[in-house]
Amino acid sequence: MPINPTGTPPTDFTPPPNLKRVRKGLVVINTGNGKGKTTAGFGMMLRAWGRGMNSMAVQFIKSEKSKYGEQMAAEKIGIEMIPAGRGFSWTSKDLTEDEALAQNGWRIAKEKITSGEYDVIMLDEITYPITWGWIDVEEVLEVIANKPEMLNLIITGRDAHEKLIEVADLVTEMNEIKHPYADQGIPAQKGVEF
Amino acid sequence: MPINPTGTPPTDFTPPPNLKRVRKGLVVINTGNGKGKTTAGFGMMLRAWGRGMNSMAVQFIKSEKSKYGEQMAAEKIGIEMIPAGRGFSWTSKDLTEDEALAQNGWRIAKEKITSGEYDVIMLDEITYPITWGWIDVEEVLEVIANKPEMLNLIITGRDAHEKLIEVADLVTEMNEIKHPYADQGIPAQKGVEF
Repeated sequence: MPINPTGTPPTDFTPPPNLKRVRKGLVVINTGNGKGKTTAGFGMMLRAWGRGMNSMAVQFIKSEKSKYGEQMAAEKIGIEMIPAGRGFSWTSKDLTEDEALAQNGWRIAKEKITSGEYDVIMLDEITYPITWGWIDVEEVLEVIANKPEMLNLIITGRDAHEKLIEVADLVTEMNEIKHPYADQGIPAQKGVEF
Repeated sequence: MPINPTGTPPTDFTPPPNLKRVRKGLVVINTGNGKGKTTAGFGMMLRAWGRGMNSMAVQFIKSEKSKYGEQMAAEKIGIEMIPAGRGFSWTSKDLTEDEALAQNGWRIAKEKITSGEYDVIMLDEITYPITWGWIDVEEVLEVIANKPEMLNLIITGRDAHEKLIEVADLVTEMNEIKHPYADQGIPAQKGVEF
């Protein structure tokens, strides 16, 4: 009977209960070109909610008009998810407005982070406005450095800035191995994918 | 002002609304040695729940005794997550019992899949009992081939069998870039990580 052929326990499970707990809020980054960055961040928020912790998200790309499954779920259970985008900008006629939306989202995020009222805050897809120069990475780093000690911060999006990677505690890269759009021409499925 | 320097839209967003929708249930695999496999699967279940869809999970490693945040969240909102494991087996004295637990989990999973009552079913960490030879991959493939057409199936765990990858619609590999246990000796944080 083949047992645990890899020989080492995976790192993505609870440590043994006798391990001394050095509690601190983590800075978590989900990056890479694959799926699951936002979804895993959302799952972390829900998990925290399951434990009675307080979480919220600012979504830097998703617009107020879109109806995403995670927004609907969050609404049902009373988790605040603030949209601060208009979808992706490459077809946008008014980039100034997009930039203003992102900066407004960042202003809200800073207030939420410094408020001390949350256990988990997700800055969903904030990497894009950082990449586009709309939000200053140095200011983000400063806010992270001064965040409440126990606050867990989740940052998602492609091409996370190397300075963010540097200060993060946990960085996961989601890589696309196989994708239904590219391989089979299947559009995104309502419910599971958005 | 730098705009969309990568030039191509990301694949992890909603397609344009005028795209013809070829609806079908997807087989989704989250694999790799990084974090977020289960969490993203859980997020997909919650997203589906947000849209009023019906989801459940069989968890092949997590034991009935453990209290995980996702189980607590699922319980709060009435999503069934059935534990069918005892934690990881390398310290187990009774492997026969572990194998029986996994096979029982698989029996339950098959019933749920064929029932036609669900939109989303997660087979959480089923890759391990498959790797260990406790669940026959050929039988899993047969169940996948005959699943209800609209059912979305989420499979998580390291080392997903290549035959599973072959039949999957969407495969994402979660890779660990930086991890707090290894790098800083920080144990898993209650709430966000489990």
